[in-house]
Amino acid sequence: MAKPEGRSPEGRHIVKRLPKRAEYDRETINAILDEGMICHVSFVVDGQPFMIPTIHARDGDHVLLHGLKGGRMLKHLEAGHDVCIAVTLLDGLVLARSAFHHSMNYRSVVLYGKGHEITEPDAKMAAMKRFVDHLTPDRWDYLRPVTDKEIKATSIVAISMDDVAAKVRTGPVSDDEEDYVLPIWAGVMPLSTVASKVEDDSRLNEGVSQPDHVQNFDPANRNGN
Amino acid sequence: MAKPEGRSPEGRHIVKRLPKRAEYDRETINAILDEGMICHVSFVVDGQPFMIPTIHARDGDHVLLHGLKGGRMLKHLEAGHDVCIAVTLLDGLVLARSAFHHSMNYRSVVLYGKGHEITEPDAKMAAMKRFVDHLTPDRWDYLRPVTDKEIKATSIVAISMDDVAAKVRTGPVSDDEEDYVLPIWAGVMPLSTVASKVEDDSRLNEGVSQPDHVQNFDPANRNGN
Repeated sequence: MAKPEGRSPEGRHIVKRLPKRAEYDRETINAILDEGMICHVSFVVDGQPFMIPTIHARDGDHVLLHGLKGGRMLKHLEAGHDVCIAVTLLDGLVLARSAFHHSMNYRSVVLYGKGHEITEPDAKMAAMKRFVDHLTPDRWDYLRPVTDKEIKATSIVAISMDDVAAKVRTGPVSDDEEDYVLPIWAGVMPLSTVASKVEDDSRLNEGVSQPDHVQNFDPANRNGN
Repeated sequence: MAKPEGRSPEGRHIVKRLPKRAEYDRETINAILDEGMICHVSFVVDGQPFMIPTIHARDGDHVLLHGLKGGRMLKHLEAGHDVCIAVTLLDGLVLARSAFHHSMNYRSVVLYGKGHEITEPDAKMAAMKRFVDHLTPDRWDYLRPVTDKEIKATSIVAISMDDVAAKVRTGPVSDDEEDYVLPIWAGVMPLSTVASKVEDDSRLNEGVSQPDHVQNFDPANRNGN
């Protein structure tokens, strides 16, 4: 899969080894960020790499991260340190005739940047809406409104998508030409993330039923951004 | 979700904020690593964080990474630099009555360490088997055997699981007590990774059918390790 290849003149992205898998157009990048339900955030403390899985959202050409005020990662990012964010969607296993040509179909985005804190309460609330509606479109307006205390207790950091790239592999197996005569099955095993039967909370009030945004939820087709 | 909380006396893992979500037993950790089909690898170059999604495998108490010989990430890890590896499984969306208490059910492992290169050809081949069988159990023995050239072209790095922790959230919504009276639906939306209809390669030889390990493939129930 993806290999790091150091910095290009424009930033840290170069895909020397497998250039056909590099995708830089913003539409592809945005679609991956918007479909992804989780991201990994990498940062450096005392010269050592740290990584945290967390929820993201997108606001135009910024990726948003959030957390409880005072959390170490958010404090680190608010201080303007470098951060790397990755979102990866797994689309399938590519099962070749040889071990060497096994691969994965995937879509990934890697973003490099520095965060800046969102401090203005209305802007923070708008960002909080993006997190909720990123995962479950239309849910924010259905909820008990956030309180000033909750807004204060939340840290939001925005990272500009100036240095961002996507890598995508699609399509069939690519075996060595001489291996195609072998009596070995090859093909692609498609993978996807699906929702199964929704679990009602045990303390639901009588008469409360699942709203449309829950009944119609489809992980791969969300339009919350 | 997960927050970084600096180093414990034993290593870089501490979960101050949400201690109930920390799981340190090796069985939990191994199960997450073995179910995960993809990991994210973070490392530091010139003081900056880099991250790459890639395939991993586990060999006892080591996590294995691989790539083409000469790839930047593998060269960096072979040189003994610090690395952070994360595997995250998304199990569900926790849809609370307030935005603030929305969460995710997930299982994640974060591992800190330094890599060492596997150089002995038989050990490299054994590692290559682990990558194939990690994703699709029983496939390695079915394939065209790897060649010496392929083994030479592959870099394998092992990272000891000395400094590793899991974090797990399961269970229902946890709302503010006063919000339970509200006429708002809450619950958990379970998520899972599934395989859909397998795509035969267009150049399959006549008479070649899907082997059992393909027909019976279940992403969440693999026993390749």
